[in-house]
Amino acid sequence: MVIQADDIRSAAERIRPLARRTPVLSSAAFDVEYGKHVYFKCENLQNGGAFKIRGAANLILSLPNAALAHGVVAYSSGNHAQATAIAARHLGAQATIVMPEDAPRSKMEATRSYGARIVTYNRFTDSREQIAGRIQRESGATLVPPFDHPMIMAGQGTAALELLEETGPLGALITPVGGGGLLSGCAVIAKAIQPAIRIFGAEPEGANDTFLSLLAGERVAVRPDTIADGLRSPKPGELTFPIIKSLAERIALVSDDEIRAAVKFLLLRLKILVEPSGAAGAAAVLFRKLPDDVRSVGVVLSGGNVDWEELARY
Amino acid sequence: MVIQADDIRSAAERIRPLARRTPVLSSAAFDVEYGKHVYFKCENLQNGGAFKIRGAANLILSLPNAALAHGVVAYSSGNHAQATAIAARHLGAQATIVMPEDAPRSKMEATRSYGARIVTYNRFTDSREQIAGRIQRESGATLVPPFDHPMIMAGQGTAALELLEETGPLGALITPVGGGGLLSGCAVIAKAIQPAIRIFGAEPEGANDTFLSLLAGERVAVRPDTIADGLRSPKPGELTFPIIKSLAERIALVSDDEIRAAVKFLLLRLKILVEPSGAAGAAAVLFRKLPDDVRSVGVVLSGGNVDWEELARY
Repeated sequence: MVIQADDIRSAAERIRPLARRTPVLSSAAFDVEYGKHVYFKCENLQNGGAFKIRGAANLILSLPNAALAHGVVAYSSGNHAQATAIAARHLGAQATIVMPEDAPRSKMEATRSYGARIVTYNRFTDSREQIAGRIQRESGATLVPPFDHPMIMAGQGTAALELLEETGPLGALITPVGGGGLLSGCAVIAKAIQPAIRIFGAEPEGANDTFLSLLAGERVAVRPDTIADGLRSPKPGELTFPIIKSLAERIALVSDDEIRAAVKFLLLRLKILVEPSGAAGAAAVLFRKLPDDVRSVGVVLSGGNVDWEELARY
Repeated sequence: MVIQADDIRSAAERIRPLARRTPVLSSAAFDVEYGKHVYFKCENLQNGGAFKIRGAANLILSLPNAALAHGVVAYSSGNHAQATAIAARHLGAQATIVMPEDAPRSKMEATRSYGARIVTYNRFTDSREQIAGRIQRESGATLVPPFDHPMIMAGQGTAALELLEETGPLGALITPVGGGGLLSGCAVIAKAIQPAIRIFGAEPEGANDTFLSLLAGERVAVRPDTIADGLRSPKPGELTFPIIKSLAERIALVSDDEIRAAVKFLLLRLKILVEPSGAAGAAAVLFRKLPDDVRSVGVVLSGGNVDWEELARY
């Protein structure tokens, strides 16, 4: 495996100036209703509104000054863009973010407010990877990939490290799965701390690439169609997938309606705003997709960036 | 003063089995925008969804078994009802809650779900104090008043104790003001820990009884009209008012529109759901009602119990 538990422990030290130790919430009423002890790790309350700062900070904070002087580049229309911008600004490095020209204004504004330069592209005619590659070549900037990099994966794993430090042993851990950075990092540290813990991922039915890949035994691509915009990666990562294959018991699939219900539940009962992508793990627990004999479960709520208009549509 | 700092320290020990140590959140972007360091004490994430459990638990946990055997009684249509029910159930005591017959179903259901017996009354023809008094006489139950009792006030003060333990010295502290239980308890402990701290209350313009009472130098009654249903007390408490008069610098008034804007801000930026009453202090900061030379401020967000329908109307 490309990352070990010690990489995650080192990441936890490294990212301390940038990543918050987010609270772990539980609800006695919820536990009674579902017959499980459920602990929610609130990455929606994280700096930048999502867990993404953990990985981006881990990579960027480990760059030598000579590399930082040339800046960093990332392609993302969502939380990874903001995370990269925040971490770069902290070190005085220029961040360039490649975003689709039809990305929500609010996300562009947020990213720009952190001091990033935004380069837009046409989602139908351009390749964002090629644009980012050109920026790398021209400026010498370092690419900050969204998930498929050991430093990113190790950074994301710090969410599970903090969670287990706070809860003690758990029966299971579940996180949302996009490209698999969060799940792979969390799985490595959780299994190191507690080998008997059962690891689950949560994917939307409309973006079930990791589910299908685990069935096939190899990486399979899909055309994502889900409200969970952060989980719309078409294919698991080259580095993340072998870890998930080796450590995860299975992927729980949730429908968009189940995700919406989970967002609403978390808002009204836990009093926290979680974005659809961030609520996939909670949806899996709420709709009883985990085995009955799992008595206690840690759920990573991975982000909270929702527009008011989007929320109002629920 | 009817409570001292040691009463609040004792309360903190006593209520530990029932009241969570709620997180303190801040937002770097917010701090830059407002030129202040703002620390939000998230009592919306408290057991029962509001700070009220602190006071109710402090009183109920101090009752002798002989009293508990006769149960407790409270009148409230809101968060105090749930808090009393939760604390009573924890000790196996019967709680009777006197609620207006037109109280929201959701609040009645929530209170009943904690094992409380509900007695309804007509807000226009009956007196809830008389009904509670009759229940006390007939059953020997102990009354748990919503704010005007030393044990309640001391319990509520534990919110500020936890906040200051976490933040260290602050320039100011602000809490919403209904009957004044929260503000008086918080003021006593904050001034004991840090004599130079400046204490403010936040009241809706339409429920400005404490504001007017401080002007008049004595308790004045108003007819409350505000969306902040938890702050609709017509008159400051007999015990709370002298403390507020002695320790608070002044009351900041906020309009219902400012409260709505604060609820929305807290939801989208801090990712937490705060009810209108709970957001009054945040509204005062957002709309710059505190003196400019206050550089750091602790804001108690006092509760998070909002209906979906109410939220949708914003």
